[in-house]
Amino acid sequence: MSHNSFGHLFRVTTWGESHGPALGCVIDGCPPGVKFDLARVQSALDRRRPGQSRFVTQRQEPDQVEVLSGIFEDDRTDGQVTTGTPISLMIRNKDQRSKDYSEIRDRYRPGHADITYDQKYGVRDYRGGGRSSARETAARVAAGAVAELALEQMFGEFAISAGLVAIGTHDAEARDWSAVDQNPLFCPDPEAAKTWEKVLDDARKSGNSLGGIVEVEAQGFPAGLGAPVYGKLDQDIASALMSINAAKAVEIGDGMAAARLSGVDNADEMRMEDGKVAYQSNHSGGILGGISTGQPIVARVAIKPTSSILTPRRSVTRDGEEVDVVTKGRHDPCVAIRAVPVVEAMMACVLLDHALRHRGQVGSFPS
Amino acid sequence: MSHNSFGHLFRVTTWGESHGPALGCVIDGCPPGVKFDLARVQSALDRRRPGQSRFVTQRQEPDQVEVLSGIFEDDRTDGQVTTGTPISLMIRNKDQRSKDYSEIRDRYRPGHADITYDQKYGVRDYRGGGRSSARETAARVAAGAVAELALEQMFGEFAISAGLVAIGTHDAEARDWSAVDQNPLFCPDPEAAKTWEKVLDDARKSGNSLGGIVEVEAQGFPAGLGAPVYGKLDQDIASALMSINAAKAVEIGDGMAAARLSGVDNADEMRMEDGKVAYQSNHSGGILGGISTGQPIVARVAIKPTSSILTPRRSVTRDGEEVDVVTKGRHDPCVAIRAVPVVEAMMACVLLDHALRHRGQVGSFPS
Amino acid sequence: MSHNSFGHLFRVTTWGESHGPALGCVIDGCPPGVKFDLARVQSALDRRRPGQSRFVTQRQEPDQVEVLSGIFEDDRTDGQVTTGTPISLMIRNKDQRSKDYSEIRDRYRPGHADITYDQKYGVRDYRGGGRSSARETAARVAAGAVAELALEQMFGEFAISAGLVAIGTHDAEARDWSAVDQNPLFCPDPEAAKTWEKVLDDARKSGNSLGGIVEVEAQGFPAGLGAPVYGKLDQDIASALMSINAAKAVEIGDGMAAARLSGVDNADEMRMEDGKVAYQSNHSGGILGGISTGQPIVARVAIKPTSSILTPRRSVTRDGEEVDVVTKGRHDPCVAIRAVPVVEAMMACVLLDHALRHRGQVGSFPS
Amino acid sequence: MSHNSFGHLFRVTTWGESHGPALGCVIDGCPPGVKFDLARVQSALDRRRPGQSRFVTQRQEPDQVEVLSGIFEDDRTDGQVTTGTPISLMIRNKDQRSKDYSEIRDRYRPGHADITYDQKYGVRDYRGGGRSSARETAARVAAGAVAELALEQMFGEFAISAGLVAIGTHDAEARDWSAVDQNPLFCPDPEAAKTWEKVLDDARKSGNSLGGIVEVEAQGFPAGLGAPVYGKLDQDIASALMSINAAKAVEIGDGMAAARLSGVDNADEMRMEDGKVAYQSNHSGGILGGISTGQPIVARVAIKPTSSILTPRRSVTRDGEEVDVVTKGRHDPCVAIRAVPVVEAMMACVLLDHALRHRGQVGSFPS
Repeated sequence: MSHNSFGHLFRVTTWGESHGPALGCVIDGCPPGVKFDLARVQSALDRRRPGQSRFVTQRQEPDQVEVLSGIFEDDRTDGQVTTGTPISLMIRNKDQRSKDYSEIRDRYRPGHADITYDQKYGVRDYRGGGRSSARETAARVAAGAVAELALEQMFGEFAISAGLVAIGTHDAEARDWSAVDQNPLFCPDPEAAKTWEKVLDDARKSGNSLGGIVEVEAQGFPAGLGAPVYGKLDQDIASALMSINAAKAVEIGDGMAAARLSGVDNADEMRMEDGKVAYQSNHSGGILGGISTGQPIVARVAIKPTSSILTPRRSVTRDGEEVDVVTKGRHDPCVAIRAVPVVEAMMACVLLDHALRHRGQVGSFPS
Repeated sequence: MSHNSFGHLFRVTTWGESHGPALGCVIDGCPPGVKFDLARVQSALDRRRPGQSRFVTQRQEPDQVEVLSGIFEDDRTDGQVTTGTPISLMIRNKDQRSKDYSEIRDRYRPGHADITYDQKYGVRDYRGGGRSSARETAARVAAGAVAELALEQMFGEFAISAGLVAIGTHDAEARDWSAVDQNPLFCPDPEAAKTWEKVLDDARKSGNSLGGIVEVEAQGFPAGLGAPVYGKLDQDIASALMSINAAKAVEIGDGMAAARLSGVDNADEMRMEDGKVAYQSNHSGGILGGISTGQPIVARVAIKPTSSILTPRRSVTRDGEEVDVVTKGRHDPCVAIRAVPVVEAMMACVLLDHALRHRGQVGSFPS
Repeated sequence: MSHNSFGHLFRVTTWGESHGPALGCVIDGCPPGVKFDLARVQSALDRRRPGQSRFVTQRQEPDQVEVLSGIFEDDRTDGQVTTGTPISLMIRNKDQRSKDYSEIRDRYRPGHADITYDQKYGVRDYRGGGRSSARETAARVAAGAVAELALEQMFGEFAISAGLVAIGTHDAEARDWSAVDQNPLFCPDPEAAKTWEKVLDDARKSGNSLGGIVEVEAQGFPAGLGAPVYGKLDQDIASALMSINAAKAVEIGDGMAAARLSGVDNADEMRMEDGKVAYQSNHSGGILGGISTGQPIVARVAIKPTSSILTPRRSVTRDGEEVDVVTKGRHDPCVAIRAVPVVEAMMACVLLDHALRHRGQVGSFPS
Repeated sequence: MSHNSFGHLFRVTTWGESHGPALGCVIDGCPPGVKFDLARVQSALDRRRPGQSRFVTQRQEPDQVEVLSGIFEDDRTDGQVTTGTPISLMIRNKDQRSKDYSEIRDRYRPGHADITYDQKYGVRDYRGGGRSSARETAARVAAGAVAELALEQMFGEFAISAGLVAIGTHDAEARDWSAVDQNPLFCPDPEAAKTWEKVLDDARKSGNSLGGIVEVEAQGFPAGLGAPVYGKLDQDIASALMSINAAKAVEIGDGMAAARLSGVDNADEMRMEDGKVAYQSNHSGGILGGISTGQPIVARVAIKPTSSILTPRRSVTRDGEEVDVVTKGRHDPCVAIRAVPVVEAMMACVLLDHALRHRGQVGSFPS
């Protein structure tokens, strides 16, 4: 059991506080012989990096990843490859400004983990949120990039695409995944993205913040991933996405709306095409009975609005004094934006983990 | 790693197919000295038992639980107590009717695990759905009842209440948990329950089925349950609820709606009352940063409509032939109903598991 | 984490007390499609069964195994096969004589778990030793037999042979594994076996008991099983063998004697034969750096003498009174004998678990 | 499941290769509020550090530990304390000399993991043994020092003492643990230590190496640590000690010799002294039925001789060529010496893990 690890055969352990010297992860169980591509890992980190637009925190972190173990190269290998031993990745924190945390040291931000960490542990690194900060997700993104490299070797072509599909009460219509990196909101609907910029500016300027919904779609994965009853693929996706900071709900396929459907409407009917099963719809989100169907795997996660806002909120101090809390400093007005690469990374990790588990228990994949 | 176990310190492993000789579970890690009450366990099973109204499957199963190990009694104990060793519980299947499964043996029900089990494993006990049948949840309910007995010993007064809060497009308004056992739909809104009976009758008679939403609320638990980052209480609740048959989404507190709120509205403000922190709202569902706040813990799970329906749906056979599938036999027109005691049981298991984990790592609970 | 399970991908959870209604195990992670052979499982249990000679406990238990789940047969399968879902096996206890346990209820047998179970849990099923009884090992033997069936499917020809190679101060010379089932002591040295019968008779008649050493050799397994650092094959063998009742030491290859060798003598030199590496010796016991070499895997476990003896020993009661303890009843004069099939079973489970782990992480085995 | 972690509630994951940039560990599950003492951790590392006498490798490594997370200090804490979040520790490698590894790159040292790593993974960081190097144990020693700090807070006074009790065919008589740090061989018998220096010099000068036996004794721990059947304290000690490089056997209490005893002689008789159980002997090594008795916990591990020696040994290359291997470079003539602090560290980790597990499942410790 582990409070800071996820996955089973592909197991990632993260460490580090927001304002400590560094953060990182240890990846245990990456298959050997995977062609390692540091630029790909760095590029994934660059997407998640703070300070890239006015819609995210202004903290300046290069998020340069350092590989400490598990990768090897000599004249017999095709460049750098994984060795099957633990891959340790580290990112140094550069732009800590810990000097002025007297406020959140004693004053609990409503809707934030400040109070519960103190209640549970009695002590807490409050500088920048410490371990509860979203900075921890940099380590997830690095691990996810490694998972993608391994998945490529196992499955060849595939795509894991994520994007912001709702901000506050505004929903995206289109799912043009290629548009996601064309706008600062990671939105797959270019039209919506334009409107949303103003929506978010308004919230930000009024000292407020917004929630959002991130959708992820994994295409090109075989049927058979997952396991019955308590090793279900959807269960592990739910666990992975709910572990992301500020997550409050997870949907698979039609999600909450599935409860509103009748059995007649919910059935994903099947026909044969080119000798293969062809589903006529994908209400299930690519998962039936906890096992992948071969259709696109679709999930969504609801991210609540940032609790660190400029509007005063009633709260209490560590010593039980009633106060009003205003959180200055550098905070994301909508953390759901930077959650997009994190969701993608978590999905890659879960899929690789299940692919290795399937290979262990069953051997080959269904063709 | 285990595909058929959940929990860490309170670990439940279930086994059994719908039409095999029996099903059951092994509970490992139940604290010693817990006063065992077989009647309580049986009573929990009786709630989940099929055949109790026209709204659930007509299969007749007494679901009588047999205790095979882990419980002891002598003249020094206060009746039967747990010994700290594994508790093995078994329920014999009585009303299997396996003779006529030629239909689902070869024909995949759309929206059902039939096809994915076959694809993954190459072989499948198709009789009554085999391992993918909701009959497996009887073992969960038995384990949950044991968890409740242990929680009582740890925390005294508490309440874990679950109910059906939506069926199809109809929502309950009230949350009168005492009403749940007064109607055959386990609905906490007595008025709604009356209307719903007709809604469900209509669906059933037209050869259709309905989805629903189950809500659960756990009251009386201390702050401090949970753990940061990957041992989050909400993460484990999400995993537990998503592992239930037909689950497609999980919400904590405001859930999907949290994404629609602004930071100002989402903040659960705090004041002091009688020297204790008093939250002014509970958008968070009693969990912040993955750790319980001491407020009621609130979660919801969306259950899709039963895929076994009388209305013909297009499908394929195991051999790739295109067919229409009509599922006769005894099926729940709305599996969400009988999911209610299962959701309650899973919540009890998760809370006990986290209580033991907290006690292990931290020692005492925050007062 | 689990106190009553072992293995990772092939995971066995056992339950049951010596004088409870039954004992058994749940096997999670057995690959699907393994040809199941109930007679093989029963035959393994028959070897371990009590009451078969004057050298083992006279308790009469048929140890008939009942398969409760995980096995399926229809006209498409080649007889009974595993389905990949949990295999639940149960053995009913038949010959409990719990009426007269007032003695060990209150009096702690020196060298027995009586006192530590009471100290840890505060309560204990003392009838026949409860959970600490060697009856638990019946479940291991059943699981081991299933593991052997799966190993056959993966690797074809192989042999896991175990035997009693020392009793008290007497050592076997020969390692004729085919002789093991020809004598009641499971000794691979037929000459030694004859002498030992008298040695054991003498011990038994004088109200004493003897310890012994069990050796196990696994032939026909590929190089590559195991994992570095904390998933070492020898580490898991040590864990598995030390988990057997009364085990006090585990050796791999030369074991304790390896400490007495020089580096020159300990080196297993290598030459090429038929294009393959041919080791010139096997000091290592077939494991280097935690990973199998392809040579026979050799381990030994030291089993202490039975603590339940007729010779009075000084002890105390639960209430702190000083007493002399004499243990009547039916006990093995040398538990090491019946440990032989248990050691074999544990080795099969560990090897299958590692084979599945290797297949998961690495894919194919080295040729 | 994890190949590079050990422990459950106190879980340590190590990473790093001998000639990579660094090595380290992540400690997950250390209780919060433990007074952290960096000097204590460094001092433990200094004991294990290479280059301190002619009896160990001449590699010069300062082994300076860097704390990257999990420790916090402000004006409310009593110096540095643990926060309950993961503690990441890193040690930079300084004295790598990777330039000339062409020899062991292709030539497998007999008795070394060179060949099995290659066979399993197909690729291997051969520089200095890569992940299979004993340098990995620096991370264990650091983790063990943290475990000791936590144990002090839980149990107050205790002692975990380890020493070299045999080298080659020479045994120590005395167990004067205070003498261990007074001689370069970590021997608890000052007289023996003097003789052994010459023994080891002779071996070293003749291009040979020696094995040895390390004994560890843990005093001051309560009864009740451990768990039945597969969470046995002795089982976890066996697993932990067998995971150390070059370990070939583990003994608990009398170990292999227990098999030679009769039941009469093996019984640890009990009397009452000052109202407490007083054992009259400790054949069991402080563990009965997998659970600690409150007596000193005693274990031994056999360490084989270093396989990297100057005497030529017959071997093969990666490409199947027959060669003679002579290992130059800096190697320990008896790795058992530097295993002493490692054994002590592993014992501390296992005991803390079990203490937390006991507290989780049972609550308080038996008085």
